[in-house]
Amino acid sequence: MTKPDDSVFLKLSPKVQDMYKKLSDFVEFECIPAEHLYHQQLAPMGHPDRWNIVPPVIEQLKTRAKEIGVWNCFLPPTYGKYSPGLTNLEYAVLCELMGRSHLAPEATNCGAPDTGNMEVFAKYGNQAQKDKWLVPLMNGSIRSAFAMTEPAVASSDATNIETSIVRDEKNKQYVINGRKWWISGAGDPRCKVYLVMGKTDFGAKKHLQQSVVIVPAGTPGVTIVRPMMVFGYDDAAHGHMEMLFKDCRVPFENMVLGEGRGFEIVQGRLGPGRIHHCMRAIGLAERALELHILRITDPSRKPFGKMIAQHNPVPIVNSRLELDQARLLVLKAADKIDAAGPKAALKEIGMAKIVVPRMALAVFDRAIQAYGAAGVSQDTPLAYMYAMMRTLRIADGPDEVHERQVAMYELKKSAELRSRFEKQKDIEASLLAKL
Amino acid sequence: MTKPDDSVFLKLSPKVQDMYKKLSDFVEFECIPAEHLYHQQLAPMGHPDRWNIVPPVIEQLKTRAKEIGVWNCFLPPTYGKYSPGLTNLEYAVLCELMGRSHLAPEATNCGAPDTGNMEVFAKYGNQAQKDKWLVPLMNGSIRSAFAMTEPAVASSDATNIETSIVRDEKNKQYVINGRKWWISGAGDPRCKVYLVMGKTDFGAKKHLQQSVVIVPAGTPGVTIVRPMMVFGYDDAAHGHMEMLFKDCRVPFENMVLGEGRGFEIVQGRLGPGRIHHCMRAIGLAERALELHILRITDPSRKPFGKMIAQHNPVPIVNSRLELDQARLLVLKAADKIDAAGPKAALKEIGMAKIVVPRMALAVFDRAIQAYGAAGVSQDTPLAYMYAMMRTLRIADGPDEVHERQVAMYELKKSAELRSRFEKQKDIEASLLAKL
Amino acid sequence: MTKPDDSVFLKLSPKVQDMYKKLSDFVEFECIPAEHLYHQQLAPMGHPDRWNIVPPVIEQLKTRAKEIGVWNCFLPPTYGKYSPGLTNLEYAVLCELMGRSHLAPEATNCGAPDTGNMEVFAKYGNQAQKDKWLVPLMNGSIRSAFAMTEPAVASSDATNIETSIVRDEKNKQYVINGRKWWISGAGDPRCKVYLVMGKTDFGAKKHLQQSVVIVPAGTPGVTIVRPMMVFGYDDAAHGHMEMLFKDCRVPFENMVLGEGRGFEIVQGRLGPGRIHHCMRAIGLAERALELHILRITDPSRKPFGKMIAQHNPVPIVNSRLELDQARLLVLKAADKIDAAGPKAALKEIGMAKIVVPRMALAVFDRAIQAYGAAGVSQDTPLAYMYAMMRTLRIADGPDEVHERQVAMYELKKSAELRSRFEKQKDIEASLLAKL
Amino acid sequence: MTKPDDSVFLKLSPKVQDMYKKLSDFVEFECIPAEHLYHQQLAPMGHPDRWNIVPPVIEQLKTRAKEIGVWNCFLPPTYGKYSPGLTNLEYAVLCELMGRSHLAPEATNCGAPDTGNMEVFAKYGNQAQKDKWLVPLMNGSIRSAFAMTEPAVASSDATNIETSIVRDEKNKQYVINGRKWWISGAGDPRCKVYLVMGKTDFGAKKHLQQSVVIVPAGTPGVTIVRPMMVFGYDDAAHGHMEMLFKDCRVPFENMVLGEGRGFEIVQGRLGPGRIHHCMRAIGLAERALELHILRITDPSRKPFGKMIAQHNPVPIVNSRLELDQARLLVLKAADKIDAAGPKAALKEIGMAKIVVPRMALAVFDRAIQAYGAAGVSQDTPLAYMYAMMRTLRIADGPDEVHERQVAMYELKKSAELRSRFEKQKDIEASLLAKL
Repeated sequence: MTKPDDSVFLKLSPKVQDMYKKLSDFVEFECIPAEHLYHQQLAPMGHPDRWNIVPPVIEQLKTRAKEIGVWNCFLPPTYGKYSPGLTNLEYAVLCELMGRSHLAPEATNCGAPDTGNMEVFAKYGNQAQKDKWLVPLMNGSIRSAFAMTEPAVASSDATNIETSIVRDEKNKQYVINGRKWWISGAGDPRCKVYLVMGKTDFGAKKHLQQSVVIVPAGTPGVTIVRPMMVFGYDDAAHGHMEMLFKDCRVPFENMVLGEGRGFEIVQGRLGPGRIHHCMRAIGLAERALELHILRITDPSRKPFGKMIAQHNPVPIVNSRLELDQARLLVLKAADKIDAAGPKAALKEIGMAKIVVPRMALAVFDRAIQAYGAAGVSQDTPLAYMYAMMRTLRIADGPDEVHERQVAMYELKKSAELRSRFEKQKDIEASLLAKL
Repeated sequence: MTKPDDSVFLKLSPKVQDMYKKLSDFVEFECIPAEHLYHQQLAPMGHPDRWNIVPPVIEQLKTRAKEIGVWNCFLPPTYGKYSPGLTNLEYAVLCELMGRSHLAPEATNCGAPDTGNMEVFAKYGNQAQKDKWLVPLMNGSIRSAFAMTEPAVASSDATNIETSIVRDEKNKQYVINGRKWWISGAGDPRCKVYLVMGKTDFGAKKHLQQSVVIVPAGTPGVTIVRPMMVFGYDDAAHGHMEMLFKDCRVPFENMVLGEGRGFEIVQGRLGPGRIHHCMRAIGLAERALELHILRITDPSRKPFGKMIAQHNPVPIVNSRLELDQARLLVLKAADKIDAAGPKAALKEIGMAKIVVPRMALAVFDRAIQAYGAAGVSQDTPLAYMYAMMRTLRIADGPDEVHERQVAMYELKKSAELRSRFEKQKDIEASLLAKL
Repeated sequence: MTKPDDSVFLKLSPKVQDMYKKLSDFVEFECIPAEHLYHQQLAPMGHPDRWNIVPPVIEQLKTRAKEIGVWNCFLPPTYGKYSPGLTNLEYAVLCELMGRSHLAPEATNCGAPDTGNMEVFAKYGNQAQKDKWLVPLMNGSIRSAFAMTEPAVASSDATNIETSIVRDEKNKQYVINGRKWWISGAGDPRCKVYLVMGKTDFGAKKHLQQSVVIVPAGTPGVTIVRPMMVFGYDDAAHGHMEMLFKDCRVPFENMVLGEGRGFEIVQGRLGPGRIHHCMRAIGLAERALELHILRITDPSRKPFGKMIAQHNPVPIVNSRLELDQARLLVLKAADKIDAAGPKAALKEIGMAKIVVPRMALAVFDRAIQAYGAAGVSQDTPLAYMYAMMRTLRIADGPDEVHERQVAMYELKKSAELRSRFEKQKDIEASLLAKL
Repeated sequence: MTKPDDSVFLKLSPKVQDMYKKLSDFVEFECIPAEHLYHQQLAPMGHPDRWNIVPPVIEQLKTRAKEIGVWNCFLPPTYGKYSPGLTNLEYAVLCELMGRSHLAPEATNCGAPDTGNMEVFAKYGNQAQKDKWLVPLMNGSIRSAFAMTEPAVASSDATNIETSIVRDEKNKQYVINGRKWWISGAGDPRCKVYLVMGKTDFGAKKHLQQSVVIVPAGTPGVTIVRPMMVFGYDDAAHGHMEMLFKDCRVPFENMVLGEGRGFEIVQGRLGPGRIHHCMRAIGLAERALELHILRITDPSRKPFGKMIAQHNPVPIVNSRLELDQARLLVLKAADKIDAAGPKAALKEIGMAKIVVPRMALAVFDRAIQAYGAAGVSQDTPLAYMYAMMRTLRIADGPDEVHERQVAMYELKKSAELRSRFEKQKDIEASLLAKL
């Protein structure tokens, strides 16, 4: 297994230590070595089967993950028998391991957006919805997508969404019209259901206009328009798709929770999702730093007569300093969720969401520079890591939105600070008066 | 035309002002609008014709450029009738315009690596070599590549190259064996000639081992192995190819300048090439900053109730500050080349080579962030700009090599500084003694 | 003399080249060696004579500067016989030299705030005011101060000023009441006149409320409250004083230009003042970088067995890169003032005002780190340089104000950019339509 | 009390929670309000009594700290009855509080360099040495200094020290000759003992040449030469003094631990000292951020019509992000010391030593900018904070030394990483072979 930080590892329960070891070996010696095979098994970009073929290796990895007992680890203890019963802090440590390979989250059924969607069905779905969608999702037999972001509006502010969900009382159906993009996972042929966010009441209060409805894949009126590219990558078989909903109809029973509850659902979904992204990003950054160290200690590469490591150690030091600090912030956020719930941890989650992708991008960039031309190419995973991570400064709220939020929390303190400060000044004045 | 900076523009001669206007309109209203068409005319990535089809629009643009008289502008006045007779400073101003569209440098026959290769033929080729290769290159009827970089060695130090060029006296041929990669332009079906750098004498002094030979495309023993990807992009039709030379034979007369002169050729070639890259990067950064301004002043995008521009102006200010400073550094280097030759300007060129790509990447990144998801996608040119620019911190000497060089120039001053400093201390002591 | 950059030096006229040489030797071998003596000749901090004694050496240096003809160089050619007739670009090159020693600007009568005040008298004063104050200022026989900044209001926005200047018609006097701070030069016993900004009409339009009146030093009602400290330094004999104006009376004829013209005067005064600060800062940064190079090439200092220079050259490279770019920006701003006047150059001046102090602080900080404990102490001038430069990110408009201004200039372009962009999209569409 | 972070506070034992509350109130409402009084009670800088007067308020604060039971908290449990028995992690939380005021560490007898010196006496002193020096130090009745750093050599490498400690067998005395500087606390009239590091054997192995001897204040041959200034501050009454040892004699029994054990003593002393500095720096940064928030929410300051906080929240967000991450790193290092001892935590301590001062300086600098001119002056504590913190990037090993050390730990991993990487590649190859 990879060598964990003792200060974290030794505090884990024996059960989680055991899961850690199994998961670590699974990631290092089953997932990472399968990454090239996965891309080979895909049809080439531009090929008509690009979005029809799922690389068989990923299903084999899923079978393996179930066997060794690292499946659905993200599920909180409230899920009963389906959940391994981990705290968020425990999951954070395992999730970091998963983040090291882009195959591991899916292989362990802990990948976005399925995790978030499972949480929506579990928390907000009725029994029929759970039976139909949650069970196969938890078994890993289908995948899902969450259709929220739209091209035409400032996506950093979710209240701007314009897709309409209109009641057709006669047919007892909702009629959906709108354009969505960056719908992750919607390119996968195993993706069988979309959770679609739209507005059921454009006249209601700002946060009560939105609703979430269930749209089965293949419903008439749904078109997968095109894959959105990230830098030059299409991220198949997963994909981040543009979708068009045109007079798409679903029965009334496909409403989740109730009309006007969409914003509430989205809020409940995003918090944990954000911190999971951060946990995985820590793992990916750690892997990139390892690759960086490998390169600068490569005895066959000696520009100007000495190993790169001897020229200037500052880049790896900076990566280590930033990485360890960011990890501690993520662990703290997870710990806070455990102690006081996700709402109480919103500030910590927001802070991690700002810090982690910046850190990871800097770590990747330094590694790229050390690898030279290989670093930007298909011969290392670094450029792909960079591209995917770059989206994380935008997705689930861009940096600027989280900065606003963190600032708000800080500025809230001002009244209490001012009262303390004025008390200090009074005492000071009385001291100086005695001079 | 784009609005130039008067402090530069008004100092140009009327002739160059006129070229500037024509070139600017050509870039803005012929090249930039053709970018999408260019990519549409290519076979899709993965398609067998990906590297066989040249988008017709680029040849149409070349015809146009010749018509309006912005052709081969990079050629120094020493080329006589082929050259428009511009100084480096004048060319810098035009080259910045070309840099705004990735089609413009080729359209004006001012694109890498052809410009550098033309200079090699012109400066170092014999008459027969010039007739055969320089003339069609200057006419834009063929393209060329320069095969130097190798995968197996630390490419930041050119003396590490391992490709062998062995004399076969009996057949009066050189036999070439080696593997090259990142051979830009070698994927283009119009690329008819490679200048290949290798070692003719592994036992000679470090800088006299290398030679450059001419290898016509299609010579037996040459294989185009694969395109190297840059963040998912293959940069077709141009391409950055891996090539294998296996017992590839060319006649003795294909040697350029003479055996052992390869390092000299490469040095002569790289200086101007580096500064041309920088000039173009300034133009591309300017275009990205314009796109950034367009986005944050888009009246239809008002997250949290006001235009992005009103939230925080610092990103565009930083881009403007960095961009203008970097441009001045590039212009200074060009001016120095004009005044004292490229050798005397090595420090200035090296400084620009470090500063400009970092600046451009920062400018692109800020623009990407402002565009949100669109910024990383195919719907803006920003991610592609970023990817291509990222290679410039590595190509033609990575940052670290140029930092070493700039440091060397600075440290050279220490003797003179110390002598002045000691004189100051002596005077100070005599002043204090009188107290 | 110090070795100038040929690309600038060789373009100077022979007259200015000659001044450059004389000034350079004066700074290097007369001013810099006198710095310690200057501080020794001051009464110690806390001593009752701290603000009564002017170090004799500064008057000796002034005599020398007059002798060698480097006096009042800042005066534009419009001053006739008093001015050496330099362009702003020429002055920029000389002013950089002056900036290398904190004694040189005063020694050459080119120091703030006297230069700005002389410009006020020259541009806006009537003949009587000029005779009384401008002539002795130009001779260097008195000094002056400009009293604008106030402690109680947000000083980044000059319209907030609250000092009142009230007409007393009976006595034909203005009555001044208000508190000012950071009044540079007011601590000097040679400071004989204050230009005081206040409001004559609190009810007028925002930019017409202010006026500037002349207050001779020693006028009843004026109190020098205390020196403001900058990181522990009081900057004697100059000083940055807090001043109280309490029922201070001056005759009507002491009004400059007219009531309500204060904002206009201040605007005219600040532009050139800002760029002069920047020019000097470039020189000081260059000196600090020289000290940095001296330290890391000191053969007696070899931590871990090799000279510091061999451990990591990046710090001096970064300093050189930033310094040269900032200098070019300053020279460009000066050149723009020459070509189109100070108003047309406001953007360039603002850009330099943001960039230069940040650059200089970074250069100083790197040098401090190389010197270790000596760097923060009285044994090098670096900490003092840092402290004084830190004020420049605040004085004459903090960074944030200049950022707003630069942003405004950028955003102004959006209409023209949008129209060009839309034209490009139209052409693109027509090209794609033909596919 | 200040509001602690619940995620830390709630994990403290009730005893430590109680100490936290008492200490917090002591710092906020007794130490901070006394800071101005302290400086008023000092003789002014330059005054002959500058180094003879101890402000009475500090002794009053010491009495108070003993009363409320926050005294000698730094002492590990091994000190028995003298120690409150805190873990390093618990102390870290309290020490952060102390760091908020420069009076609090001394007031609680937890200030440098006394804490380190007490540890030297306790760990390495014999009973007689403990009785004579440790007991009064623990009572706070005397102070002490540690004389290591020398002006003439690269102080970043302790083996360079040149002070000689020579045995005089006849008189059974050591004779000390050498020049030291930056001897913190030696300016204080209560400083009664110096621990002096020098070389007893210039011919021994590099790390066995050094010894530490006890020199009582007032021993003939010891001269306090001058205070070293930090920016413009002399840090009285404490002081950082230059000292001259000229034929200074102490009896053989004043040797600590034994000849040649000096390096060992210094290593044992520095680790905890470094992390204590970091803990305090976190507290000081937190206070500066509070001041920053106070300023930008000051309703009386509205440049351009709105509170500064509304212009741009990014500065305080960045400060919060950096501060919280740095704190977590410090707490992790403290936790590691508790779990595995200070040697095992060297990497974590080194990392904190690099990160924390940089963070604090950035936090101070942003606060300074928000305060404008007040920020650099005596009217806020920010410039003094900045100056003192700047020394921490140099003292106890400059950044560069700790970067070397952290890099060493990272590079050590390369063998294990390479073996894992090669195993991954083997598995990958076998997977691809089956395609």
